[in-house]
Amino acid sequence: MQEGFLMGVTATYLFPTKPNQSEIAEQHALGLTIGSWTDIHHLEMEQLKKHKGEVVSIEKGETKDKVKIFYPSANVSADLPAIFTTVYGKLSFFEGYELIDLEFDQDLLSQFPGPRFGAKGIREQLNVYDRPLLKAIFKGIMGRDLSFFSAQLEDLLAGGIDLVKDDEILFENELTPFYKRITTAKEILDRHYEKTGNKVLYAVNLSGKTSTLSEKAERAQELGANCLLFNVHAYGLDALQSLRENHQINLPIVAHSALSGVLAGQAGGGFSYELLVGKLTRLVGGDLSLFPSPYGDKSKGNVTISKEEASAINRTLTEENGFEKTFSVPSAGIHPGLVPQLLKDFGDNLVVNAGGGIFGHPDGPISGAQAFRAAIDASVQHIPLSEAANTSEPLKRALEQWGEMTVS
Amino acid sequence: MQEGFLMGVTATYLFPTKPNQSEIAEQHALGLTIGSWTDIHHLEMEQLKKHKGEVVSIEKGETKDKVKIFYPSANVSADLPAIFTTVYGKLSFFEGYELIDLEFDQDLLSQFPGPRFGAKGIREQLNVYDRPLLKAIFKGIMGRDLSFFSAQLEDLLAGGIDLVKDDEILFENELTPFYKRITTAKEILDRHYEKTGNKVLYAVNLSGKTSTLSEKAERAQELGANCLLFNVHAYGLDALQSLRENHQINLPIVAHSALSGVLAGQAGGGFSYELLVGKLTRLVGGDLSLFPSPYGDKSKGNVTISKEEASAINRTLTEENGFEKTFSVPSAGIHPGLVPQLLKDFGDNLVVNAGGGIFGHPDGPISGAQAFRAAIDASVQHIPLSEAANTSEPLKRALEQWGEMTVS
Ligand SMILES: [Mg+2]
Ligand SMILES: [Mg+2]
Repeated sequence: MQEGFLMGVTATYLFPTKPNQSEIAEQHALGLTIGSWTDIHHLEMEQLKKHKGEVVSIEKGETKDKVKIFYPSANVSADLPAIFTTVYGKLSFFEGYELIDLEFDQDLLSQFPGPRFGAKGIREQLNVYDRPLLKAIFKGIMGRDLSFFSAQLEDLLAGGIDLVKDDEILFENELTPFYKRITTAKEILDRHYEKTGNKVLYAVNLSGKTSTLSEKAERAQELGANCLLFNVHAYGLDALQSLRENHQINLPIVAHSALSGVLAGQAGGGFSYELLVGKLTRLVGGDLSLFPSPYGDKSKGNVTISKEEASAINRTLTEENGFEKTFSVPSAGIHPGLVPQLLKDFGDNLVVNAGGGIFGHPDGPISGAQAFRAAIDASVQHIPLSEAANTSEPLKRALEQWGEMTVS
Repeated sequence: MQEGFLMGVTATYLFPTKPNQSEIAEQHALGLTIGSWTDIHHLEMEQLKKHKGEVVSIEKGETKDKVKIFYPSANVSADLPAIFTTVYGKLSFFEGYELIDLEFDQDLLSQFPGPRFGAKGIREQLNVYDRPLLKAIFKGIMGRDLSFFSAQLEDLLAGGIDLVKDDEILFENELTPFYKRITTAKEILDRHYEKTGNKVLYAVNLSGKTSTLSEKAERAQELGANCLLFNVHAYGLDALQSLRENHQINLPIVAHSALSGVLAGQAGGGFSYELLVGKLTRLVGGDLSLFPSPYGDKSKGNVTISKEEASAINRTLTEENGFEKTFSVPSAGIHPGLVPQLLKDFGDNLVVNAGGGIFGHPDGPISGAQAFRAAIDASVQHIPLSEAANTSEPLKRALEQWGEMTVS
């Protein structure tokens, strides 16, 4: 095994089961590094050894075999575009070839930035240590103006949210321009802080052409933005890393998983969510990772991933690796009755994220946010929601509307 | 139909067939724009109309329905990250939802740059108008030094190639550093030009972190690079557009399709190759688009796409749309015996691209390139290769090695 001696990346794949898998894997390991081995003169072999890919292991399965291939770091530069192209550029064309994990040697690993703030830094900013955070999503802003936006923000603050984010499909537009949203929100958030002592983060959607992102983020910060939302898979994970590595930008970043379904959610092939939305999102610098919740019903057309996928994401966002932890933000279909289950599934790495679950409250968004806060407070104390509802009218009304999910 | 009145993007999808598809499609059209319609007051309806998504058409199919949804341009900024996030950010999470086409109104379309040179400009640079171009791929450079690189280049030039490219998995490395490859090649290419009057383009692999690409490309140009290779899907199409829109960079760009198999090649979901590697690669500025050839045998593990996919790519790279045409570079498994078929399938938009088909020639790469040139010259004159082999020993030997494919 060269792994002990050489630095590099070990890729774990699922390949469709084949009787001659070791031959196939060996060919890939060569083809994706030095090309061939058999035609090579003895002297050259020595020279090429440190560039040669190696099959590390093959675990036979029923429909897929788990294949690990090691690629020496001499072959790649320390950036994800190079690593992805090497380990999956060609293999991605084969149907059913999945890339489920990447392991980096300590040297390569240390060249990733990791989150600037992470869950810990965000908690410090918000001064909230003892409960999951509550994050709201602006609703129906498209086609509405800044007064509508401001009114929503005031309501959400009155209800007790910790963070709020733009809808990921809200881009530069005439009614609520990017910089205007920032300055408008800043004024309201500053006033809220003076009144209550509570800081709230607003993740404004950083969008536009790749070449403009850095400058826009810097300008956003100057204008008082305190958090960024970023559709990382519309730009590539490396673009997030570029933002993280720009030392002019000192803002937490919410990495949104939009579009990652193409990369990880299709039957048969692609990345694992765990790798893409979990491990790598953390390594490149996401402070929060927003991904589909595991509570939806696929057959009803809900955006959802499996429990196993969601746990694996949360695990890779929090496991010890020398970097700050990234918050899990499971999203879609979240209502107050789900909070105990969310807490059980994501522990203290949880940001409760709701749009319809706040704005759809029968008594409006203030009550909607209050219901969540009551559900969160009860859940951390292991008080059943039905009991907590006795002292919280908003929670009582929310449970009437959405019910209470039995914790499984 | 709002389409006639509003500007925007029309997305064509394949959705798994459902009896209530029009209901489902309508919900998506709303959900991905203004959110809901039924709860909205009469006055607001007027205001929101120009932001409302519209189902344009539904064509029922056996397993998939073809659904067209129109998204007003008021909802997106004129960049692919915004457009992708809107039309596919959420839908990508649904299994089997394919995005097969995007149509832009004239105003949005005109905000794409298209190729700087295109096929026409490349032909002008090379002064070759009457035949497909021949492009070689450096082989086995990894682990070898600049003298090995130089020797390969000299052979390829002696054989009569028009272009040569790095292997897409050759990144920054100690033995053949990026800038050294450029200056070394420039010296050899300049000498070749002085001697023969033939200009040859060398597409050097522009790689590294997203934030460094522009500067590296500019520096490459200063050092005498005359063409760039770019793993566009490792960075996103918009990163290619950023390079194209950088007015300091005046180099043709070969867009390599590595990794696009994740996005377009998996069963059930994802983009169409036609859209990703064809239409959009051209719109963002690829001068050449390199994609898997349709001649491989999937069952033998060859990297390949279908004939229909390859023709659709070639069609979208060449159809009239106001932009320069992008060269088709079908790759993998190309040998001289395939040239008549290639010419039939791709017409005068063809760049013949070969690595193994040149270096695997029984008499070496000079003969390998000569065999291709002989095959190309014969094919444009509709002379059968077996006949042309009478006056070209290299072609004769190549046909002995690889055979001659019957044109279908
Ligand atoms: Mg997957
Ligand atoms: Mg496809």
